[in-house]
Amino acid sequence: MDDIIEIGEGEHLDIELELDFLKENERLARENRDYLKEKGIKAIDVMGSVGSGKTTLIENMVKKLKGKYRIGVIAGDLTTTIDRDRLAPLDIETVQVNTGKECHLDARVIRKALQKFEDVDLLFIENVGNLICPIDFPLGAETRMVVISVTEGAYTPLKHPYIFLGSDLAIINKIDLAQAVEISMDSIEKDIRKVKPGMKIVRTNCKRGEGIKEAIEALDL
Amino acid sequence: MDDIIEIGEGEHLDIELELDFLKENERLARENRDYLKEKGIKAIDVMGSVGSGKTTLIENMVKKLKGKYRIGVIAGDLTTTIDRDRLAPLDIETVQVNTGKECHLDARVIRKALQKFEDVDLLFIENVGNLICPIDFPLGAETRMVVISVTEGAYTPLKHPYIFLGSDLAIINKIDLAQAVEISMDSIEKDIRKVKPGMKIVRTNCKRGEGIKEAIEALDL
Repeated sequence: MDDIIEIGEGEHLDIELELDFLKENERLARENRDYLKEKGIKAIDVMGSVGSGKTTLIENMVKKLKGKYRIGVIAGDLTTTIDRDRLAPLDIETVQVNTGKECHLDARVIRKALQKFEDVDLLFIENVGNLICPIDFPLGAETRMVVISVTEGAYTPLKHPYIFLGSDLAIINKIDLAQAVEISMDSIEKDIRKVKPGMKIVRTNCKRGEGIKEAIEALDL
Repeated sequence: MDDIIEIGEGEHLDIELELDFLKENERLARENRDYLKEKGIKAIDVMGSVGSGKTTLIENMVKKLKGKYRIGVIAGDLTTTIDRDRLAPLDIETVQVNTGKECHLDARVIRKALQKFEDVDLLFIENVGNLICPIDFPLGAETRMVVISVTEGAYTPLKHPYIFLGSDLAIINKIDLAQAVEISMDSIEKDIRKVKPGMKIVRTNCKRGEGIKEAIEALDL
């Protein structure tokens, strides 16, 4: 005995009604996109798993870009303000969005959050730590990026193709730990390109600030 | 400017109708629980983030328990059979459930999967790699456990309280990397107990088989 069950379209407990929410979210995301364009704000949706290093990456980029842009950050999390508090010393505008039990940000809450910013022209949106749900909920950001860590294991790109397919840039973080976890960086990159040929990929060690310049270039900032 | 937005109950794009699905899932989970009891199968729902080490933990426990139980594994994943294929050499009954874009297993697909097993009395259910959604969808398993890795960063328990609250056992895995990522094990344990006092916690290094015996004891197997 050995078997595979594939859950088909429409077979999920909650898929059919979810389609309506996805459509409503897309409509609100288009509104956000128009609003951001009108205000001259470049927004970047930063997605990735728990502990992949999203906050540290944003911290590093903010430090390098503070002279060039007026920067804001929306920090999404279930219940805590840990990430926002980490960003506080950078003296930039931040809005914390606590999603409660929801596993992703959505365009509606981003619309609300956008109203809170006073004067920014570059906005990082740190999504909830999750490699699955956020990709289905565009927020209106011009660019979407996914941050993975080598410590997540060798299979992340193949196991989570949708988030790579929907992203413009992939960051492979914690490259200093690759040897300790016996992971080949080349093989991760190959897997990402299997999922999305031509994907922009940058390797970083955010703790030591390595690769940040390259990430900024890849984002055309 | 500096602000917090809390998404309240009923304010999510998709929360209201989701409540119906949660109720339906709970009903099916109760059916599964009855079915498992009737068949004399002990089921364990193994949850945790991408790359936390769920498959390796299951592999290790299966190796130690194969003489005592007839073991089955349900491997949940979005699209691949990577985990099931890793378990194949163990020569046990396995069912792969591919959830497509769904971020958690649910009681309905588990009911389907249960029919595929021929002769097991211990069943590991490896949930989709995700620290948020699975906890809301009980599957009917007698025990729920959460596996985290020290490489996920220091904040996992506080950032993801619900999955700890809903679990009977927490495994802290990859303890060999704690020093490299500058994480204090004691502080992770303290944070888990802040969320759920009295929580059973076991530290493991699944790659080297450390802590497996203790995990098995904690599960009363």
